[in-house]
Amino acid sequence: MDIVVFEDIFLSHLRKKILITEPVNLYKPIEYILTLGGKRLRPILVLIGADVFGKDPENALDAALALEVFHNFTLLHDDIMDAAPLRRNKQTVHQKWNVNTAILSGDAMLILSYKLLESYKGATYKKLMCLFNETALQVCEGQQHDIDFEKLAEVSEAAYIEMIRLKTSVLVAAALKMGAIIADAHKDDAQKMYDFGLHLGIAFQLQDDYLDVYGNPETFGKQVGGDIIENKKTYLYIQALKKGTEKDKKTLLELYASSLKNNDQKINQVKEIFKTTGADIETKNAIKSYTEKAFSILETLDLDRTKKSALRLFGENLMTRKL
Amino acid sequence: MDIVVFEDIFLSHLRKKILITEPVNLYKPIEYILTLGGKRLRPILVLIGADVFGKDPENALDAALALEVFHNFTLLHDDIMDAAPLRRNKQTVHQKWNVNTAILSGDAMLILSYKLLESYKGATYKKLMCLFNETALQVCEGQQHDIDFEKLAEVSEAAYIEMIRLKTSVLVAAALKMGAIIADAHKDDAQKMYDFGLHLGIAFQLQDDYLDVYGNPETFGKQVGGDIIENKKTYLYIQALKKGTEKDKKTLLELYASSLKNNDQKINQVKEIFKTTGADIETKNAIKSYTEKAFSILETLDLDRTKKSALRLFGENLMTRKL
Repeated sequence: MDIVVFEDIFLSHLRKKILITEPVNLYKPIEYILTLGGKRLRPILVLIGADVFGKDPENALDAALALEVFHNFTLLHDDIMDAAPLRRNKQTVHQKWNVNTAILSGDAMLILSYKLLESYKGATYKKLMCLFNETALQVCEGQQHDIDFEKLAEVSEAAYIEMIRLKTSVLVAAALKMGAIIADAHKDDAQKMYDFGLHLGIAFQLQDDYLDVYGNPETFGKQVGGDIIENKKTYLYIQALKKGTEKDKKTLLELYASSLKNNDQKINQVKEIFKTTGADIETKNAIKSYTEKAFSILETLDLDRTKKSALRLFGENLMTRKL
Repeated sequence: MDIVVFEDIFLSHLRKKILITEPVNLYKPIEYILTLGGKRLRPILVLIGADVFGKDPENALDAALALEVFHNFTLLHDDIMDAAPLRRNKQTVHQKWNVNTAILSGDAMLILSYKLLESYKGATYKKLMCLFNETALQVCEGQQHDIDFEKLAEVSEAAYIEMIRLKTSVLVAAALKMGAIIADAHKDDAQKMYDFGLHLGIAFQLQDDYLDVYGNPETFGKQVGGDIIENKKTYLYIQALKKGTEKDKKTLLELYASSLKNNDQKINQVKEIFKTTGADIETKNAIKSYTEKAFSILETLDLDRTKKSALRLFGENLMTRKL
């Protein structure tokens, strides 16, 4: 299980399969967003899922590409909804072209992701399709919950976890399970791969919330404090409201209702509340708990020690952001 | 083959399957657009396709609904692109809610249409999926060509026919073929149903261009002259540029470059050019030619006379706008 090799064979598959054909104005933006870069986490997880169950990852390349195309379709449409000017430090599609192009090319990408799965046959094909349909719909539902949360005064911890489960974790989970399905793994093992990915995905997203506040600006990749500036109701915010005194709660709500000129001052005040309320520790505990749950599921898998260790190492590298 | 019965069983299937669940803000717009009405042409064609090959249309209801959901997804996203305020005399989704809702609910509809096909099994499922994937992608390509044409000075007759083939006819064709696939019809017959639908679909779209200029305002359903007001490069326009003198061509290009205050005057001048150039007759001939081609394909189908007559009658009713 060599991640560098997996990334390499995936990228050459992408270059081979994603070609600009007619009408060029539909396919050029698709090629553009798919070659912007990124960690390629989901496709690599599909290849890993097949590999640990003894299948040549070559057989999982089309499914890997399908998930990467799907993921980039969601980015394309989410960027319109967020009016985001940049993605991976390059112009977003709706900025470089226009909103209509971004809508239509995104639609075509969603269909292309389905088309890529056509190379699978029989029962494998049907299993992949049902998992993909359910996952894709959940991702839309997660995005809707995220949009709905912007207008709510308070969001419960459970509702927040459910939102990140749907919006991001189910796709990570489905990636591993699709690999397992292609390798014809036992149903229970395929489901365990899913559950491992789901918990790791939630842990990863909670850690993203944490690093947005406490991360190293040199290595985090996004603007530290960005969620606070945008008044995003993250896990830290939800915990602070839950654990804080009436005074903490009032101050935090006021800070999130304001649009201060001085962002640094706002960030420092919010960080102080996260500390006094113990929201920072609660978040670290939750990350630890979801990560441990993921690794405990891994232990129950019917795989030899080497494979389990490789999966665990992959999870650890992901959580320590070494990938 | 009773169209009224088919519409009835389809509508009750739609009401049973399309429910508003959580998150409500995602599913409410979907229920809204799907219950706005419309001819339900595509789902009825799926039921007809199954029925003529001896299969109980009940078995084709999920595929019929899948195509109707897909068609309405394209309407939802097209309405954003056209900034259309109304659809079937009701507010469009992006007007009633907002653009972001229309994008996301549309995405969910595309996925839902795939999910509805899950009820088919084995080889039938795979055949339906491959046809659906190809058709869906073609519809996006057709929409892109249509957008591209707005910026072109001239569009060839062949390019125009190709655009309407992709944008509208392939879906009509696929509807009939999906019904035939569900009925386990012979491959050649399923393909003939497709070709029948394809030619009838092109004839119908050309007739739509014709009626937009010469139709009865009482019965046409859209504003007569609408295409001329919007400077749309329809089949009539393309023929007029092809057949007209240099003077006709110059006048027409000037009229389409202008935004006259007096639309009635513009409509009358354009109609005059369509007449003197013979564009009106050319269009009628093309409609006749595609309709006859459709009916000649019908004749070669391996079906008994009653079924063929029923299909022909359906086609005739469609072309005389009795449906």
